[in-house]
Amino acid sequence: MTDFQPLLARRAARAAPALFRAGAASPPGVIPLTYGFPDPGSFPIDELVETAGRMLQRSGRDALQYGPIAGPPAFVELLVAKLGAEGIGVTADNLLVTVGGSQGIDLVTHLLVDPGDAVVVEAPTFIGALQTFRNAEADLHEVPVDDQGMDTAALAVLLERLQREGRRAKLIYTIPTFHNPGGVTLSRERRTELVAVARRFGTPVLEDDAYSELRYDGDAPPSLYALDPEALVFQVRTFSKILAAGLRLGYLVAPRALLPRLLQLKVDVGTSPFACYLATAFAGGDGGATSRLAAHIADLRGIYRARRDAMMDALAEYAPPDVSWTRPDGGFFTWVTLPEGMDAAALLGPATAAGVSYIPGASYFAHGDGRRNLRLAFSFLPPDELVEGIRRLGQTIDAAR
Amino acid sequence: MTDFQPLLARRAARAAPALFRAGAASPPGVIPLTYGFPDPGSFPIDELVETAGRMLQRSGRDALQYGPIAGPPAFVELLVAKLGAEGIGVTADNLLVTVGGSQGIDLVTHLLVDPGDAVVVEAPTFIGALQTFRNAEADLHEVPVDDQGMDTAALAVLLERLQREGRRAKLIYTIPTFHNPGGVTLSRERRTELVAVARRFGTPVLEDDAYSELRYDGDAPPSLYALDPEALVFQVRTFSKILAAGLRLGYLVAPRALLPRLLQLKVDVGTSPFACYLATAFAGGDGGATSRLAAHIADLRGIYRARRDAMMDALAEYAPPDVSWTRPDGGFFTWVTLPEGMDAAALLGPATAAGVSYIPGASYFAHGDGRRNLRLAFSFLPPDELVEGIRRLGQTIDAAR
Repeated sequence: MTDFQPLLARRAARAAPALFRAGAASPPGVIPLTYGFPDPGSFPIDELVETAGRMLQRSGRDALQYGPIAGPPAFVELLVAKLGAEGIGVTADNLLVTVGGSQGIDLVTHLLVDPGDAVVVEAPTFIGALQTFRNAEADLHEVPVDDQGMDTAALAVLLERLQREGRRAKLIYTIPTFHNPGGVTLSRERRTELVAVARRFGTPVLEDDAYSELRYDGDAPPSLYALDPEALVFQVRTFSKILAAGLRLGYLVAPRALLPRLLQLKVDVGTSPFACYLATAFAGGDGGATSRLAAHIADLRGIYRARRDAMMDALAEYAPPDVSWTRPDGGFFTWVTLPEGMDAAALLGPATAAGVSYIPGASYFAHGDGRRNLRLAFSFLPPDELVEGIRRLGQTIDAAR
Repeated sequence: MTDFQPLLARRAARAAPALFRAGAASPPGVIPLTYGFPDPGSFPIDELVETAGRMLQRSGRDALQYGPIAGPPAFVELLVAKLGAEGIGVTADNLLVTVGGSQGIDLVTHLLVDPGDAVVVEAPTFIGALQTFRNAEADLHEVPVDDQGMDTAALAVLLERLQREGRRAKLIYTIPTFHNPGGVTLSRERRTELVAVARRFGTPVLEDDAYSELRYDGDAPPSLYALDPEALVFQVRTFSKILAAGLRLGYLVAPRALLPRLLQLKVDVGTSPFACYLATAFAGGDGGATSRLAAHIADLRGIYRARRDAMMDALAEYAPPDVSWTRPDGGFFTWVTLPEGMDAAALLGPATAAGVSYIPGASYFAHGDGRRNLRLAFSFLPPDELVEGIRRLGQTIDAAR
């Protein structure tokens, strides 16, 4: 057996943190409120059969061949139109098609972060982003999240402290809309404030916008990118929640001056042309507000709104009075705070025994606590299972006192 | 306009080397011998229409959903059977499904290489790998390639010199079979020697095996991985040449002890389940020697053998006597050496004017020369175009004296 330890790069030599793998199978009889997965019943399978056939007959020679690293022009045009309909004015020179949203996070990290560089993350934040920043040996700094999203006053204090130490943070990573795992949305006032703080300290912002199309209530605030285009904001987007996670299709919106460098870092010979052509054919039209894709997204909103409502109602009915949770206007998650003194990780055993599972909060923090927190996903299961899961969770909490 | 320069990571701050982009469109009237692309006429479009429809109806809920990071079990089983049929004994614990072969190169690089680490590459070598190693800030060392593949005696001398300097090379990157761009294959003797040298100096080997299934003559020598399993050899493979480049589907064979660390570095939430399920359904059976995939590969061998022969015959007929080239037993390329004093980059203008294009050799070297070399691909065009392209190239060389 070869001893690889002396051969490993620093990032790989450190032991893997024991991250919760949401992909692990749920034991039988257990209602998994863990999966931040799309509703499999919502996949437009019959339409995709028809679309894939039509697309292959028409464009198979391009869809099955190598394509441009930045993405096939027809798909990039669709993205430009789609973003335009959302009030985000970009051209093809701002866009890079990526493997899901995750590759966008990875590329921006490689673009900006050397080992030891300061990176600001929300507390809590997306597990995959934490893994990416740890792989890059970033020095992670946390900013708390409350019901209005990231605490931008705390962000300014942090960046000022770093500045006094002679350091400039290389990146602020935020999920401003329908936060994963928090379920909250950054308020309009704080959006303006966040962009102003980023400008003041000259620190780029990575806006992870995986969920904004899945809004169930209220009006959309402007995206961070739209507040400061061609400046310090990058935005990662994905088709995972609005078409099919299994296609691994996303895109990165970036200042155009950086596209050549991002292309240099994207060494995968381009994101699947097959997936791009399939999404283009499915979207139809220009991908804008009247497209087939827009109609599909409207259907998804109906499905997920009902699930959000079912989970909120069940929490109101079954959660003990000293439990609190966030009320998401969109996305897939709510973030629960257990009574004082309770530990979500310790409660997972009894909860699983009672037939419900969730992800304990600690996994979502770079350094912090999250002991009393847990994430619940309402995206994957039908309303009746969500309700029964919450009933079991409420009983488990009561029994643990 | 934001000045990003002080914000960029070291790897991104350096100017992009002017790599030849084979994806750039060829001017009209010019026969492109540049593209190392599969024959688009070979794509089994009608079968894929049928397969995609059947697969989506049967497995759509899994194919369109998030899947395991290492790859869907059914696809991984197929890879185990396929490798077994080639004499490579592995289990699922040795395998990681990747975005084409390129992601495998990237993951192994991230696993092993810190900035400044020594990495050994062949001269010439694959452009994409050079880019990946440069992104990782590797210290690149070249070993020459001749008609028998990498010069393993020169490799031993290099590793010994590094050892005297107190350094251990972190990686030997090689394309032993149907080299890109060289067209040559590492001899059996040198395969044994390469593995022995790697063992002696404790340096891992990354075997890039993108083409071995496309053999047109002779018997296959053992793969480097098969010569030393579970030790120091990694192998990257791809479906790009045997099914469809546009699916961006490949896999990495690795010592099982390293799989958990590779999974930690693969932050893309898994390679497209859609692509994996489609390839599994297309392959049929166990993916082994009697599968539909094996029959398709046999068809491809016939197509590409005819193209290889057409290009070899045309070179014999039209190339001036002081031009030499390699005779590939498989793969997509031949490597041409121009007469003394000629410069392949300087010749590209006149060649394009005469209606033929190629990739000048210099792009394929980390530091070396390659001025007299150029790469010709015979994979992308039908035989008659290959012959006419070679005729034009021969005339261009003659006219340049």
